[in-house]
Amino acid sequence: MKHARYTQRGPVPQDVIEAVEFGLPALAPGQALVEVLAAPINPSDVLTLTGEYGSLPPLPAVGGNEGVGRVAAVAEDVAGLSPGQTVLLPVGCGTWTTHLVAEARALVPLPEGADPQQLAMLTVNPPTARLLLSDIVDLQPGDWVIQNAANSAVGGYLVQLARARGLRTVNVVRRQGAVADVEALEANVVLVDGDDLAARVAEATGGARVKLGIDAVGGMATERMAQALAPGATLVNYGAMGGEPCAISPGSLIFRGITLRGFWLAHWFKVTDAATRNALFAELVGLIASGQLKARVQETYGIDQVKDAVAAAAAGERSGKVMILPNG
Amino acid sequence: MKHARYTQRGPVPQDVIEAVEFGLPALAPGQALVEVLAAPINPSDVLTLTGEYGSLPPLPAVGGNEGVGRVAAVAEDVAGLSPGQTVLLPVGCGTWTTHLVAEARALVPLPEGADPQQLAMLTVNPPTARLLLSDIVDLQPGDWVIQNAANSAVGGYLVQLARARGLRTVNVVRRQGAVADVEALEANVVLVDGDDLAARVAEATGGARVKLGIDAVGGMATERMAQALAPGATLVNYGAMGGEPCAISPGSLIFRGITLRGFWLAHWFKVTDAATRNALFAELVGLIASGQLKARVQETYGIDQVKDAVAAAAAGERSGKVMILPNG
Repeated sequence: MKHARYTQRGPVPQDVIEAVEFGLPALAPGQALVEVLAAPINPSDVLTLTGEYGSLPPLPAVGGNEGVGRVAAVAEDVAGLSPGQTVLLPVGCGTWTTHLVAEARALVPLPEGADPQQLAMLTVNPPTARLLLSDIVDLQPGDWVIQNAANSAVGGYLVQLARARGLRTVNVVRRQGAVADVEALEANVVLVDGDDLAARVAEATGGARVKLGIDAVGGMATERMAQALAPGATLVNYGAMGGEPCAISPGSLIFRGITLRGFWLAHWFKVTDAATRNALFAELVGLIASGQLKARVQETYGIDQVKDAVAAAAAGERSGKVMILPNG
Repeated sequence: MKHARYTQRGPVPQDVIEAVEFGLPALAPGQALVEVLAAPINPSDVLTLTGEYGSLPPLPAVGGNEGVGRVAAVAEDVAGLSPGQTVLLPVGCGTWTTHLVAEARALVPLPEGADPQQLAMLTVNPPTARLLLSDIVDLQPGDWVIQNAANSAVGGYLVQLARARGLRTVNVVRRQGAVADVEALEANVVLVDGDDLAARVAEATGGARVKLGIDAVGGMATERMAQALAPGATLVNYGAMGGEPCAISPGSLIFRGITLRGFWLAHWFKVTDAATRNALFAELVGLIASGQLKARVQETYGIDQVKDAVAAAAAGERSGKVMILPNG
């Protein structure tokens, strides 16, 4: 058994993580042993390694917040879960590992036959995209929303979920080379960011009143989004891919009445009851299992290649998610 | 009769305005002739001359948005208003003038004996300060709020109004030389802005949960305010004295749940019913007439000195409002 462990945090994330051998005790009552099939590297995982994330686990820690596994064994008293079943791993359990022991009741059985790599990306990016569309402002079918970082995993999920809800999307990317990937999702409008963004959004949407902007870039990209929104609209930030603080002009805030807020899935999990959380996951499992909701995987790595995997995830200009297949 | 007129806008506000002779027709039914006693120069007046304000009057225009006058004559059919009465001028009527004609019913009689210069500042800055305290978040007596630009006119009104409401204020200024002026208002805490602002706010307030931040500076001053607020707090911007867009980190927005919005008094006037507006003005007239609410006046200017007056208002590091006394 091997897991990807870090004993300190530092600015170069691949320098602090390494694959090491470990052992597991015998199963205690109520527990299950799981072989991890697939676990992605999310931006929040990279920020956890560098120490920039909003909540940090005690050290030493095993990397990875989400993933899918196959039950290898269960304690004698466990009912309703059998070896061979595919399960969703609990959020935040350290998923970059060949094996882990979990409470059996924390493992959610998944439909057999679905792509485990797609299911492994279920718990972080898809609920973020879904809640950005449903929980920030009241949107009706036909309404337009605008997002940047549209070629990110959240961006891609958002295009697909918006279409399923009858919403139309303006998708902003930072380079021409990313346009085709977003257009392949049948996005309504794809634009390359620039100073005249608001004018091009108005032209592309026929002067639509865009009530929601979704920003994951920061810096002056935030202000460009603000200028493309209708007066009184809301701009929600969920990431900082540009590495700069969000910039928004007093003119946008005062004269145009734009509100800028953040969205953090971890906070939503904390303040939301289990029934609501489970209903959201059930909806997303169904969409992913049926192939209606998916994300691109750029490349897969074994557990021994975790340093290369983290370096690839931390680099810009990716074309899909970096995925660890610990037993692959 | 003379008024301060501009026929174009430009980056140097004193270059576009000048005092010119003008004439007035005979009074029509329902009208009154008013001699203007005092009219301040607000930051919004300067931004109107440079073209940076959120709403701009058609050209040519007379400068000035608020002021106090004395009724010189009324049309024969006017009842309830007599020559000699001190009146509040309608907002936005072009107050930098020796005389103006207004609808008599738009003139609000003021208490006699009060300082006309203090009353002349009634309609712009005091309602801004009052509404920032009452209409952004729900505050209870004993709660702390933090503001920057605390030595501005709005900042001074805010200290006085907060105290009257039982609120406590942390007041941030940009230079040591401004501390004494704010302390003279019996402000609870006065601090000079800097990177360790949040730590000094925590120390000065005993770790209070500050629910409201009020920003009129922008740039990284906005982020420093955000860091001094409690998780989930609101930061409201009403000005850009620093000349830079507001900067706020994704960490403040996402991990700490800070919301950044704007406040524009002109918008509040537009969406608020007359009874609510009048009740607010009546409250503020009472406080100003009784001397409980006041602002410093740095210097007064005659109408012929309007260029010097505007230049002084546009300069930084003022110690009070610049006031035009058109008949002074």
